[in-house]
Amino acid sequence: MTKQFTHLDSSGAARMVDVSGKEATTRTAVATGVLRTTAEVIGLLGADDLPKGDALATARIAGIMAAKRTWELVPLCHPISLSSVAVELALGPAEVLITATVRTNDRTGVEMEALTAVSVAGLTLHDMVKSVDPAASVTDVRVERKEGGKSGLWVRP
Amino acid sequence: MTKQFTHLDSSGAARMVDVSGKEATTRTAVATGVLRTTAEVIGLLGADDLPKGDALATARIAGIMAAKRTWELVPLCHPISLSSVAVELALGPAEVLITATVRTNDRTGVEMEALTAVSVAGLTLHDMVKSVDPAASVTDVRVERKEGGKSGLWVRP
Amino acid sequence: MTKQFTHLDSSGAARMVDVSGKEATTRTAVATGVLRTTAEVIGLLGADDLPKGDALATARIAGIMAAKRTWELVPLCHPISLSSVAVELALGPAEVLITATVRTNDRTGVEMEALTAVSVAGLTLHDMVKSVDPAASVTDVRVERKEGGKSGLWVRP
Amino acid sequence: MTKQFTHLDSSGAARMVDVSGKEATTRTAVATGVLRTTAEVIGLLGADDLPKGDALATARIAGIMAAKRTWELVPLCHPISLSSVAVELALGPAEVLITATVRTNDRTGVEMEALTAVSVAGLTLHDMVKSVDPAASVTDVRVERKEGGKSGLWVRP
Amino acid sequence: MTKQFTHLDSSGAARMVDVSGKEATTRTAVATGVLRTTAEVIGLLGADDLPKGDALATARIAGIMAAKRTWELVPLCHPISLSSVAVELALGPAEVLITATVRTNDRTGVEMEALTAVSVAGLTLHDMVKSVDPAASVTDVRVERKEGGKSGLWVRP
Amino acid sequence: MTKQFTHLDSSGAARMVDVSGKEATTRTAVATGVLRTTAEVIGLLGADDLPKGDALATARIAGIMAAKRTWELVPLCHPISLSSVAVELALGPAEVLITATVRTNDRTGVEMEALTAVSVAGLTLHDMVKSVDPAASVTDVRVERKEGGKSGLWVRP
Repeated sequence: MTKQFTHLDSSGAARMVDVSGKEATTRTAVATGVLRTTAEVIGLLGADDLPKGDALATARIAGIMAAKRTWELVPLCHPISLSSVAVELALGPAEVLITATVRTNDRTGVEMEALTAVSVAGLTLHDMVKSVDPAASVTDVRVERKEGGKSGLWVRP
Repeated sequence: MTKQFTHLDSSGAARMVDVSGKEATTRTAVATGVLRTTAEVIGLLGADDLPKGDALATARIAGIMAAKRTWELVPLCHPISLSSVAVELALGPAEVLITATVRTNDRTGVEMEALTAVSVAGLTLHDMVKSVDPAASVTDVRVERKEGGKSGLWVRP
Repeated sequence: MTKQFTHLDSSGAARMVDVSGKEATTRTAVATGVLRTTAEVIGLLGADDLPKGDALATARIAGIMAAKRTWELVPLCHPISLSSVAVELALGPAEVLITATVRTNDRTGVEMEALTAVSVAGLTLHDMVKSVDPAASVTDVRVERKEGGKSGLWVRP
Repeated sequence: MTKQFTHLDSSGAARMVDVSGKEATTRTAVATGVLRTTAEVIGLLGADDLPKGDALATARIAGIMAAKRTWELVPLCHPISLSSVAVELALGPAEVLITATVRTNDRTGVEMEALTAVSVAGLTLHDMVKSVDPAASVTDVRVERKEGGKSGLWVRP
Repeated sequence: MTKQFTHLDSSGAARMVDVSGKEATTRTAVATGVLRTTAEVIGLLGADDLPKGDALATARIAGIMAAKRTWELVPLCHPISLSSVAVELALGPAEVLITATVRTNDRTGVEMEALTAVSVAGLTLHDMVKSVDPAASVTDVRVERKEGGKSGLWVRP
Repeated sequence: MTKQFTHLDSSGAARMVDVSGKEATTRTAVATGVLRTTAEVIGLLGADDLPKGDALATARIAGIMAAKRTWELVPLCHPISLSSVAVELALGPAEVLITATVRTNDRTGVEMEALTAVSVAGLTLHDMVKSVDPAASVTDVRVERKEGGKSGLWVRP
């Protein structure tokens, strides 16, 4: 086993890895996650994806804003400029599917930004529904696809 | 169905609900979550819970710091003082179990703070392991137990 | 003229004034402001206060979140806990009236928090409409009423 | 009427628009605003633009720092690098005229950054003078001129 | 040797210690530090403590604002409310003496807040003078005195 | 004496200087500082640089995260992207030597970022050891070397 974590130096100390040699190119990442809740909550959130109030908008905004702050939250992420962020919410029978798409023209990939957008949108939904469903959970937060940079296209197997 | 979301007013507009009438008492919340990854990653993170480098410490610190910033991330959370935050990480065969315990002496519960600590510790582990396991996921982020305030003890059913 | 600014000491140096001798009591402030724009923009924002998309929700959320960060923006404001924040938007013929109501149980008044909520809600509306009306303005941002603390009730004359 | 808000997608959901196709060029924006107050306050702030203490400096600094945080406050603004920020304050008989000039070498215009600098400088002045003039207001916050990028020069009509 | 760091649990993991059992009382801390520079720089900063421009005000404001953000910077510090913050700067022959005084009515001492105010005021002065004196240093940042809470008065020996 | 501070305009007002005419090139800065403490504290921190718990990791992480936030703390610093940040800690008989190395591909040097990383790592160590050594100090925070940009290499004389 010769693999190792790029975020640790040879002595095991954490560091923000050097990306000064990488090219600034267009990079995109898509991440998803799920808020598991109850049918009752879904009924309160909307019907046929028609929201009954600001709940879904609040979660979308929270996710977009969090994507921009990823480097403040995740200690070894680089501060980068983001070219676009979109957060989509789709209502299922007893869950909300969260999808975040993030793009940059910078030196590192943006999968952490997409994952952060999904997580914080999920936390915001959790906060919104907790008075009705305290047992809700945010689950399956993961990268679906990333593109651009030297490593090229990665699609979830 | 007469339940409704306390974060929305009668017209559906988002608001930060008024807690000025609630008492400042000791409140505690415990949340958990899981980073699903591979046995190879667990081997790189440590053995017998003996970390091989700063990776676990980085995730613990990130979780603690994020708990304090919950109100900046989740739009309708109240800014509150926190009395204590602890984040524990336990290595399983192909996963890391994350547990956060948060306490306050304030007017609202701290389950969102505990959930945020778990989520960001999970995102930080994800960031750390992604060069080895890009398919990792953060899952089952949920409240296990909360105590204090008018609603008293809630334990996950 | 014997009045002076409480934020400056006798040598003129800025300081955060000592409120440790003040009592923690319930204090409320209401501030208002106006986005001046065009009838075309108002038509795009909604009709009969029925929003056509997330624009109004985005401004409400931005205002609420900014109220919580007032002490990060205004150098001599105290970091305080907020008990509630609400931002209301009402559409006029060629303007949006913004009203923010903020409450605390702390040692200082919250008029700066209410003014900050109005300003940032106004900036967010400005950002939203600028592709259609680059000449919009945010105007008449002011305190309407404040209550609580030693100075009691103040109503705009 | 075929115009629409670029910040909303076809379903009305808020998003951070994609600027990855735009060129990074030098862009400048100038915004202004006014703190309306009393002659007494202007006397306390200074004479012949000679400040009597840190009040004007505090507002200038607050405006500059806020310009850099625009993307944290206005939900759909892009995080961008700023090449320069200047905030000028001029004392009138019963008002302070605030002018902010912001420049970038990035993919979007900086009018929101200039407007945010003006607003927060205005809020800071408001905070400073409120013990003497609680009825002050921040008014006429607007873009005067913007330059650079595909849309070229725009001057307030 | 039985002493140990309160910020680490028995396994050595970092945690934010529990202060929920401590009383909220008035606590004060004074910290100092020095910017070591050249006589030329002191001449540019002012004469007889009369500043020639915004340099000293900028450092004072930066120190005050940083005190409020201590808990965002120092991972295991508690988020607390501050009752007052003052930063004083005194010009010596080839140095600036920085003194910060911070007060709270909360459950923990504020020496870290005072130290952070001194450090960031020092960094800001360093930034200001670096075009003239790149070899400047910030030195002797330390607590002079702290008062209040169970441990009572501590004065630097 | 014709030198002057670039951060002040001709009237003495603070401003963020215009770097739009500078080239985006690779720039590196190294800064150092020292936590002066006791032999007892060094014994608690580790032996032969083998840490006994998370204390050193916490300081490293805090320093790295602070480097990214320099522009939020130091009022006239530009918000820039950082390509790498590393913080090294070496234990001496009664002190910890802190070294930070920061790199960017942007329009300004990164000595302030390196100094901020050192300062906040030092403050975090101070926080960690203060229960055992309240008289510790952070000292000799200074630039050792900077490289890149028009001014080229500077090494501390």
